[in-house]
Amino acid sequence: MKSKTAMVIFQPSGRRGRVPLGISIVEASRRLGVDIEAPCGEKQVCGKCKIRIEQGSFQKLNIESTYSHAGPWQSGEEKYISPEEKEKGYRMGCVATVEGDLLIFVPEAARAGKQVVSKAPRPLDITINPAVKQYAVELVPPSLEDPAGDFERLCAALEKQYGLKSLRIDLSVLRTLHDTLHTGEWKVTVMVWMDQEIVHVQPGPGSGMFGLAIDIGTTTVAAYLCDLISGQVVDTLSMMNPQVKYGEDVVSRISFHMENPDGLKRMSTDLVDGLNSLIDQALSREYTLSTPNGIDGPQTDQVIRIQAEDILDVSIAGNTAMHHILLQLNPEPLGVIPFTPSVHHSLDIKAHELGLKINPAAHIFVLPNEAGFVGGDNVGVILAEEPHHQDQIQLIIDIGTNGELVVGNKDRLICSSCATGPALEGAQIEFGMRAAPGAIERVTIDPETHEVDFKVIGKDPWRSYANPEDMKTKGICGSGILDAMAQLFLAGIIDKSGAFSKHQFSNRFGIHPETDIKFFVLAWAKETSIEKDIVITQQDVRQIQLAKASIYTGCKLMMRKLGVDRVDSVKVAGAFGSHVDCKLALVIGMFPDCAIDNIVSVGNAAGDGCRIALLNRDKRVEADWIANNVQYMELTLEENFQWQLMEAIHLPHMTDAFDHLAGVVPEHILNK
Amino acid sequence: MKSKTAMVIFQPSGRRGRVPLGISIVEASRRLGVDIEAPCGEKQVCGKCKIRIEQGSFQKLNIESTYSHAGPWQSGEEKYISPEEKEKGYRMGCVATVEGDLLIFVPEAARAGKQVVSKAPRPLDITINPAVKQYAVELVPPSLEDPAGDFERLCAALEKQYGLKSLRIDLSVLRTLHDTLHTGEWKVTVMVWMDQEIVHVQPGPGSGMFGLAIDIGTTTVAAYLCDLISGQVVDTLSMMNPQVKYGEDVVSRISFHMENPDGLKRMSTDLVDGLNSLIDQALSREYTLSTPNGIDGPQTDQVIRIQAEDILDVSIAGNTAMHHILLQLNPEPLGVIPFTPSVHHSLDIKAHELGLKINPAAHIFVLPNEAGFVGGDNVGVILAEEPHHQDQIQLIIDIGTNGELVVGNKDRLICSSCATGPALEGAQIEFGMRAAPGAIERVTIDPETHEVDFKVIGKDPWRSYANPEDMKTKGICGSGILDAMAQLFLAGIIDKSGAFSKHQFSNRFGIHPETDIKFFVLAWAKETSIEKDIVITQQDVRQIQLAKASIYTGCKLMMRKLGVDRVDSVKVAGAFGSHVDCKLALVIGMFPDCAIDNIVSVGNAAGDGCRIALLNRDKRVEADWIANNVQYMELTLEENFQWQLMEAIHLPHMTDAFDHLAGVVPEHILNK
Repeated sequence: MKSKTAMVIFQPSGRRGRVPLGISIVEASRRLGVDIEAPCGEKQVCGKCKIRIEQGSFQKLNIESTYSHAGPWQSGEEKYISPEEKEKGYRMGCVATVEGDLLIFVPEAARAGKQVVSKAPRPLDITINPAVKQYAVELVPPSLEDPAGDFERLCAALEKQYGLKSLRIDLSVLRTLHDTLHTGEWKVTVMVWMDQEIVHVQPGPGSGMFGLAIDIGTTTVAAYLCDLISGQVVDTLSMMNPQVKYGEDVVSRISFHMENPDGLKRMSTDLVDGLNSLIDQALSREYTLSTPNGIDGPQTDQVIRIQAEDILDVSIAGNTAMHHILLQLNPEPLGVIPFTPSVHHSLDIKAHELGLKINPAAHIFVLPNEAGFVGGDNVGVILAEEPHHQDQIQLIIDIGTNGELVVGNKDRLICSSCATGPALEGAQIEFGMRAAPGAIERVTIDPETHEVDFKVIGKDPWRSYANPEDMKTKGICGSGILDAMAQLFLAGIIDKSGAFSKHQFSNRFGIHPETDIKFFVLAWAKETSIEKDIVITQQDVRQIQLAKASIYTGCKLMMRKLGVDRVDSVKVAGAFGSHVDCKLALVIGMFPDCAIDNIVSVGNAAGDGCRIALLNRDKRVEADWIANNVQYMELTLEENFQWQLMEAIHLPHMTDAFDHLAGVVPEHILNK
Repeated sequence: MKSKTAMVIFQPSGRRGRVPLGISIVEASRRLGVDIEAPCGEKQVCGKCKIRIEQGSFQKLNIESTYSHAGPWQSGEEKYISPEEKEKGYRMGCVATVEGDLLIFVPEAARAGKQVVSKAPRPLDITINPAVKQYAVELVPPSLEDPAGDFERLCAALEKQYGLKSLRIDLSVLRTLHDTLHTGEWKVTVMVWMDQEIVHVQPGPGSGMFGLAIDIGTTTVAAYLCDLISGQVVDTLSMMNPQVKYGEDVVSRISFHMENPDGLKRMSTDLVDGLNSLIDQALSREYTLSTPNGIDGPQTDQVIRIQAEDILDVSIAGNTAMHHILLQLNPEPLGVIPFTPSVHHSLDIKAHELGLKINPAAHIFVLPNEAGFVGGDNVGVILAEEPHHQDQIQLIIDIGTNGELVVGNKDRLICSSCATGPALEGAQIEFGMRAAPGAIERVTIDPETHEVDFKVIGKDPWRSYANPEDMKTKGICGSGILDAMAQLFLAGIIDKSGAFSKHQFSNRFGIHPETDIKFFVLAWAKETSIEKDIVITQQDVRQIQLAKASIYTGCKLMMRKLGVDRVDSVKVAGAFGSHVDCKLALVIGMFPDCAIDNIVSVGNAAGDGCRIALLNRDKRVEADWIANNVQYMELTLEENFQWQLMEAIHLPHMTDAFDHLAGVVPEHILNK
């Protein structure tokens, strides 16, 4: 009798367990909590999930038979696995299946490592007017003459001392109210949400109130833990969006939902679990808070530990797909005509409804959606940058896995999303990877010698100041790819059409003998941890061209709709925006022409807006106004969209960028 | 090595399982789902939990050692267990502990059987104005010109067609909204709670809306399943309050909470589980509903099955202890000065917060509390009987395990609760039991021969029309005890002081040779299923006297406070009230004098009021007004309370009842 499950062991993590026969190795890895890169969503088109079938002996388990235990070799695997690799036991994890006990080695390149997320909060001038406010009250103890119940007694005191009327109380708070009043000897601190509902009562002076502004990106999640009284950012927490394992972009996540009956719930639960682990992190840390001593007195530092029940408010911003998946709303209609979400309006949801492990009575404010894939994150960007309050015409480009654009001023705002594709996040690039340790993030190429220098995430010195063996790079992330692209162009290695020029003298240039694909070596094998040259190929260049053309076209079409030829300023938002050299982005024609001093990187503006909504309740009303008044534009339906996109493929788009390139672009390029 | 658990088997149910050593047998029975009577809450004062340790062989388990496996004999057990019974292996289940494998026989008398709950709804004239209303709408499908989201589209239609504004939507409804709109091809039926929140959307014409009015008594729970559109009562469901196993009255439940850290949660969860099993019953049944055909057309009968999601509203009424335990609020302060509840005001709680398995978006309306133990059930009684709308002075006595009294008219209402004690429910009475099959519910005693006739629940003929062996009675329930008491008095067997008179000629009268306690045999051993005579003892008579005196004293003190000598009508509510012969209750002086035609039994008025609140939202506002305006009176703190109580012990209280006894009380008694 053959058993219907098999033991699978993953190395180097050592995770093991029994899984049903017949499932793919990527699926087995998910079930056992091992993250294998599968950015294409198991569509067998990215080749990232390459793993190696091993032999070995573990406890009472001898695993000798290999091939027969992982299902037969499938046509298509040879596209990503060389004959030598095949010989060594490499398979594609999304194709090979569990047919018997297996020992599997996950090469570093296939491990979904922890990304370096640097979404530090910008200092913002926010009026502190939180949704939850605290009130200290002293109650008259009950007596036979005045025997009113605990809740009524508390309400009477709040009305008398603060004028609060018709309050509700959350059931979880009511459950402990009696004991709290007694512990505090009738002196308590009461937290009230929107002057409507009592969400927390603490004996005595209380232990403060905190809130979380959570920016849910397709790839990364950032959470700002804020003191709701001072507005101070106490901590910044971040993680990969755990849904990445179901697909790298919004479209592959939606596909995962469409193909799996429980896909939506799984993705939502994984994200909520992830958010809870961020919250756990915050609760396990000690924070030093400054409290003013009197009006002009010196500040006192106080070391505190935050309790889950002290987290009393949350604001969440994400694109519409992240919004819908988190709330388990059907995301399918977002991507098809007429691109309608289940809901535009902001939502107030109880923490316990979503399963967030904070105070169960707390509300979660979910920022409203604009349309298509443009969601609360873009509302956040607008809240933070305030184009709707200004005369000047701003163009704001939020480059994440999904690109979101907004242009206009106080008279009119237009938004759209553009399929930048995952190239700028490192996917669909031969040696692309996310911005994780080991990724090349900065590149320069000497225009004369065509020698390369680069910087790797996690290593301080540039390549030219370090030993080659110390670099241990394993791929290129978004900003590195953009740098490389611009530098290749500036050095004349590729021409305006993006093609490798015919005149190459560097030994870094090559042509693959079999596929005939041209490439340029950025890092030699000895500088890597993957033991082969890291190159940028002609195909990679095409991917980046497509991404930049799509952003550029979006901007131009929106400007056409708005009736302007030029914008007063360009703001580049998003984590990618913070890493990218805006000047080089302009060089390759990623966005329309603008005075170079007015091109600024604004960091994680979506997260900033989310924080603004957390700390100032009036901005929540404004958020709904924005979502309702920004005009959505579906680029792919615009006249001439395809033609414009073709046009924009070329680099640089000198008609716009020309004036500012003096000193950046060598003369011999400009004059070519 | 001795294992730390032991196997326990209960017979005749056959339930078995391993339990930790050291716990009591009653506790073991709870864990294994076997209900043993323990009305005193394991205080070792009621003797109801008498069980027998057996020997036997079960599967691989030989249970031979008995005594040593149930812990040593404890002093106090002999109070309830005779030497003969001790010889046979009887023990008190709350004293004997599990010290090894045990086989336990639960005698019929100790089995917590299913009570017969007859709480049929009265026909009531209710204005149908439910909290949840349904609206049929047809939406314009979205297009590129009109791409608004699903929720906004639905709201626009509801505003245009019905003027509903600023609606919220429950997250669970939003989750299925998109698919529902498509299934219904943009024609849907929308259920809106209080014109504020969308709680259900169904494709097409919808499948109706139903609600549950739930009356949670200390001993019994009744639920009325109502059609929210017609107001029709579709079904009446009832059960024992599952909390009975933790103690028979409110005080022993509160003790259970105080003595067990998880006691409150266990009692609440057990009740919610019980309510869910009632709901399951309703969902498994088929109902025939009459639907009118046009305005004057004939009614059409339609057979339907209700889905959980169609149950869209719930109203709950209970005394404050039941209210607090259900909601897991600390019930301790209810019984001590100044008797303040955690909350008076009515509450709207989401079904999913309480774990009720109906539509998760539905709200539960919990009726408000008055004070002390007088809760939403009394508010329900007032809603149903409307003393606050009348000139005449009503006295309403709701006799359950806890007695609740209200007296007054539109000018002033006073309420109080009186510790009737569990005697009227059959506890603390030697052969007392709940109103379950086998209980004597009606008794007559011939004043000349002192011969007894009785009726048993579950048997149609009275004793005198049946074979003795067919009666198989096993105890006396509340109405039987009251009947017996009045008949003993009317027959001259007991005198005005409640003492057995000195002149006894019947062989039914006896004196226990050891304890010297006087008794009167109601049923001979051959008429029982417990193989011994069922008697009413001098102590039993004292218990009933105390209960009736406590009700009488309460009524009199309230009337004194109100400044009246006489009331215009007396209404006896509660299941007990429906069974009791009001005339005999007046005979023994249970309530103050009143014209006999104006003494009426009003059935389950609390349940009726609960149904009124379910079907008419305006009555919910009125409920809060009532709770806020009825004056609570704590009887035990009143001047002369003890003296009045002592006075009222005597029977009959001729000063009041005298006039009406002609024809009921034999001459020779009146003239004594």
